[in-house]
Parts: sequence; C-alpha cells; structure tokens
Amino acid sequence: MSLNPEIAARLKRNQDGLVCAVAQQRGTGEVLMLAWMNDEALERTLATRRGTYYSRSRQRLWVKGETSGHTQRVHEVRLDCDGDTVLLIVDQVGAACHTGDHTCFDADLLLADGPDGADQLDAAHKPDGAPTPADA
Amino acid sequence: MSLNPEIAARLKRNQDGLVCAVAQQRGTGEVLMLAWMNDEALERTLATRRGTYYSRSRQRLWVKGETSGHTQRVHEVRLDCDGDTVLLIVDQVGAACHTGDHTCFDADLLLADGPDGADQLDAAHKPDGAPTPADA
Repeated sequence: MSLNPEIAARLKRNQDGLVCAVAQQRGTGEVLMLAWMNDEALERTLATRRGTYYSRSRQRLWVKGETSGHTQRVHEVRLDCDGDTVLLIVDQVGAACHTGDHTCFDADLLLADGPDGADQLDAAHKPDGAPTPADA
Repeated sequence: MSLNPEIAARLKRNQDGLVCAVAQQRGTGEVLMLAWMNDEALERTLATRRGTYYSRSRQRLWVKGETSGHTQRVHEVRLDCDGDTVLLIVDQVGAACHTGDHTCFDADLLLADGPDGADQLDAAHKPDGAPTPADA
C-alpha cells in the first residue's frame, strides 16, 4: 500500500521527507509526544490505526509500543494548514515517554504560573525591578 | 538578554538551530499550532510571556499576533524528554491559524472514528474485504 495520492499531494515534507506528528490523548487532551512521519509511517498509521512513526536516529519505521507494549490506538488524524504537521488523537496504553513518564513533557517545566495563578515573571520583569504597589 | 545557559544546554536544536514549539490552549487543551523557536524566540517567550517564534520563511523572529492582534499569553512552557520540542500552554486571543480557523488543525481531517464511535476503517481494512458478522 502507498499513501493516498490526494493526501500525499498536500504534505509539505522537510528536507528529509518528514512531517511532524503530535500525539494527543483522547479525552484528557494531554499532549503526549512529538515524533516524525514519512509517507509510509502516515499510511501505516491511517491503515492500521496504530501510531507508527519514522525514527530519525534509527532511520526506520517504528510502531509505537512495539517493544514496550505502550501502543497507541489512533482515533483521529488531522493535517495542519501548511501541510507539515499531523495531529493524532490517540488512546495511549501505559506511558507515552520512553523514560516511563506519562508524557514526554512531564519532567522539565521551564515556566509556570505562580501558586495563586498569577504570572510569576510579571514582577521580576518589571523594567526597573521596583516592587509592585502590592509589595510596598 | 540571552537564554538561561542551563536551559540552553538542554536544548537539542536541529541543523537550523531550531526546536519545535507546540501551542496548546489552556483549559480546553486544544492543540492550536506548531511553530519553531530559536534560542532568542524561547528567551523572549519566557521573559515576556507572549508567544514568540522564529519564522523559517522570513528568517526572523515573530511575535504571534503582532499584525493580526491574535496574540498568545503564555502560562506554561515545558521542554520534552529529548530537548527538541517545547509545549506552550497559552491563552489564545482570536484565531490561532492564519486562515482564520480557530486552530491550524481544523480544516483537514484525514481519519476519524465512525458516527457511532466505532473505527470506520476496521471493516474497510479487513484483509479479504469480507463483511463482518454484523453486516451479514
């Protein structure tokens, strides 16, 4: 099988022939991971509904969970406006991340809101560093 | 200002010096768009909490909404396990997509569940194309 030509014609692949793929958990909306697909990976994903990607390091297709058992059942696939990214709505079995974390974005928080929901950086980035009225 | 060296050391940039950036709507969890960041775009995003990206076509920074008014207030930024993608939790003003769509993934559905929630392709992809018992 090869990818539907009408879909293939809408893809805008990078220099390595790949598009980005964002996997999102159905229901909760959690963004699980970002990976890459070539035409064959997308075709396999659409045909089998198992999340299937292209490994840039191993230079071959991989079915998510083929060794870990942490497979993805794909419920929806959407192509973005410029054709270089697909969004997959999936049911993830077990951890999405190879580290064992639930998602690949769990471990490294670079910026957050303050504990009261306020923006932590607002005060810190005031031009003159002066305390806010509330601090005075 | 330059990017915090401890963050910069964790980034795994592509050959153009960029990482992927996925923007997700706070609250609803909708995936809005995928764009790219260089170190300066990430530093500006963290410092200003305005979604700021690197345009590969224009080869310069762009603040999301600088012309359209469709800005992004950034509440959270997370780096993924291999350092090549950031996830931004944002409040999107207006449409995220340059087409006017709410998200960049609204217009082109490649695969969906059936109207009853069943997988539409299951029957179509049975190896021999035979009807399922339910069809018989």
